[in-house]
Amino acid sequence: MITLASDFGAPYPAAMKGVVRRRSDAELIDASHDLPRGDPHAAAFWLRFVLPEFPPAVHCAVVDPGVGTDRAAIVVLAGEHAVVAPDNGLAVPPARALAAATGADSEELEVFEIAVDDPTSATFHGRDVFAPAAARIREDAWTGTGVDREALAALPSLTPADEYVDRRFPEPTVERDGEAVVAVAGEVLVVDDFGNAITNVPADAVAAVEPGDRVRVNGGDPVPFVETFASVPQGDRLVTVGSHGHVECDVNDGRGTDAFGVDAGDPVRLSFE
Amino acid sequence: MITLASDFGAPYPAAMKGVVRRRSDAELIDASHDLPRGDPHAAAFWLRFVLPEFPPAVHCAVVDPGVGTDRAAIVVLAGEHAVVAPDNGLAVPPARALAAATGADSEELEVFEIAVDDPTSATFHGRDVFAPAAARIREDAWTGTGVDREALAALPSLTPADEYVDRRFPEPTVERDGEAVVAVAGEVLVVDDFGNAITNVPADAVAAVEPGDRVRVNGGDPVPFVETFASVPQGDRLVTVGSHGHVECDVNDGRGTDAFGVDAGDPVRLSFE
Amino acid sequence: MITLASDFGAPYPAAMKGVVRRRSDAELIDASHDLPRGDPHAAAFWLRFVLPEFPPAVHCAVVDPGVGTDRAAIVVLAGEHAVVAPDNGLAVPPARALAAATGADSEELEVFEIAVDDPTSATFHGRDVFAPAAARIREDAWTGTGVDREALAALPSLTPADEYVDRRFPEPTVERDGEAVVAVAGEVLVVDDFGNAITNVPADAVAAVEPGDRVRVNGGDPVPFVETFASVPQGDRLVTVGSHGHVECDVNDGRGTDAFGVDAGDPVRLSFE
Repeated sequence: MITLASDFGAPYPAAMKGVVRRRSDAELIDASHDLPRGDPHAAAFWLRFVLPEFPPAVHCAVVDPGVGTDRAAIVVLAGEHAVVAPDNGLAVPPARALAAATGADSEELEVFEIAVDDPTSATFHGRDVFAPAAARIREDAWTGTGVDREALAALPSLTPADEYVDRRFPEPTVERDGEAVVAVAGEVLVVDDFGNAITNVPADAVAAVEPGDRVRVNGGDPVPFVETFASVPQGDRLVTVGSHGHVECDVNDGRGTDAFGVDAGDPVRLSFE
Repeated sequence: MITLASDFGAPYPAAMKGVVRRRSDAELIDASHDLPRGDPHAAAFWLRFVLPEFPPAVHCAVVDPGVGTDRAAIVVLAGEHAVVAPDNGLAVPPARALAAATGADSEELEVFEIAVDDPTSATFHGRDVFAPAAARIREDAWTGTGVDREALAALPSLTPADEYVDRRFPEPTVERDGEAVVAVAGEVLVVDDFGNAITNVPADAVAAVEPGDRVRVNGGDPVPFVETFASVPQGDRLVTVGSHGHVECDVNDGRGTDAFGVDAGDPVRLSFE
Repeated sequence: MITLASDFGAPYPAAMKGVVRRRSDAELIDASHDLPRGDPHAAAFWLRFVLPEFPPAVHCAVVDPGVGTDRAAIVVLAGEHAVVAPDNGLAVPPARALAAATGADSEELEVFEIAVDDPTSATFHGRDVFAPAAARIREDAWTGTGVDREALAALPSLTPADEYVDRRFPEPTVERDGEAVVAVAGEVLVVDDFGNAITNVPADAVAAVEPGDRVRVNGGDPVPFVETFASVPQGDRLVTVGSHGHVECDVNDGRGTDAFGVDAGDPVRLSFE
């Protein structure tokens, strides 16, 4: 299985599918081609969230504003998964999550650089570099149930990468009054298609907050902290922990970004009463 | 085969695909992930239209504004098809159409409730409830060519549902002058990506209207009733019976919603001269 | 393998998938369902670009503003590929590229007309004509590795087409001063999801332009002609040759259409200093 993810929209992904299918009969699954455009780090958030649901696979992910520069093309081995991507922060967060999901050590990733010879274009490495590499790995380094470490390392197009971009998501700051948590200051990492503003604040940072408690977002009027959207009337604001394990600022049947006046990258300070 | 449909846009459907693929090798087909957002009834219109084109399959459909509430999760058996969905009106209209398409009795549906134990999240049952249920049905209640009624009923996670949401689409009102139909009053059920305003008025309600006759929509200037878009000049308005068998208010190479000033849910009165 | 392409958005393509799956177990691959809406010629540009990446396949492509008129439905044989489409200019450009990619003569295409008997609708031939034809070809005229010419020609639903729409993309005009090229006048063929304005000017028309040279677009301020986006600062304009081999007017991490004030169909004059 090869999953495909990009910020390409349409129809560029079709070229990647054709390139893979010329080289491999492996199943192709579209993860998403609407990842945050030109933002590898935000895209990494989404892939970290969705890819660990898959059984071992080759994941070909392309959000590549630096295409045509000297940024490397890499493969990250994560348990029996491989993530093929530009070396710009896109690959490592999902690879850590894939490693953790398969019982491997998420801090001990093995990273290889893909040799890029004379690409057809300097603007579409999804077609010219990443899709061919994903197909080659699937054909030449697959055990039948996952990626084989030895076969991967033996591929002539790969060399161990001494350095690679290992960007972490920003940590929120917890403000305390004695023992009590009074606020958490973070930021909006991504916005989903529903307009939910998903923050870098993990569930455990708000573990002391009870459903029904009230939270202020950036000093605004207090809104309920709830377990699900439908806990508030339609059109009302809420703060909840989403299915990705992060705090999000939402509206039941509306757009949290509009109602809270926040967008991706904006600071979010959650204060508790 | 498992079809997937939702109002999730991207990238949430990828998590559902991974969840299925961990449990089943069945083919995955995306029906649509752009169903009318948060509107199970409008989404049911689309699924009623497209799903009967498929051979027997497990259809996993999630438009779920009530996620996290006590609304049930259900499976509707329709001939050799099964529809897995929240119990909010989404499942039954397509299930009736699937039953009819396979020669089964569309008024005698068998509905089961899915046991939901300790979901991982209260906000993403597509991943945590519906995708696993669809995979389980495909693995444990599949004859090779369709869903097996006995095997389905025997699944320990399913119990017969005594009650379920069986919401019908609203019927239009036919206004007569003696024998003659002078008007039909209905509403816009859904708007497609072309901007066509698709109504609840079925073809047989306008059976007496001839191609070339003129129709007023909500009392506006008369427009031609035609068999296809290209029967009118580019940019002109028209009324036709769409491929789903319903009357729609359209523009040839334009948006009917704009030209007629209507949107989903709005009343539409068609009057004939 | 059957690829599907259309301007349908969602959920109409699902009906086509179901129709194919009733008739064939062939793999289904979505090429794109967001082709330029109602514009077969612009859509042909994209299919000409992406389809040649695929191994031999049946390609079912529907951008069909003339649905319901007497425009024919055709199959174009291109090497071992077949393109099934309305006869409106959509099929031939990609078919030529497919023929060239497989070593066949791109000027000697074989074109068949599909008999259309009593379609279910006059508005959705994707479901009622093209998807069934694609499935039939895949089932009855497939060698195992590609489309078989003899079997295709023998299909009772097909007859040789004496005439078909063979619309070429407009050629740009090269303006010279003696030997030197001083300008190329063309037009924007399509705009991609990034806002890149892709022109009809092929790479060889600007072969004399060196990376780093400056180009004026429609008489505006000179911008750099570069090999890749990241050659200019974020937010800056550039002119480059895209992965499709055409000149495009772009912004690094922005929309070229906005920055250059051009859209699909607009004239573009590139002048060199």
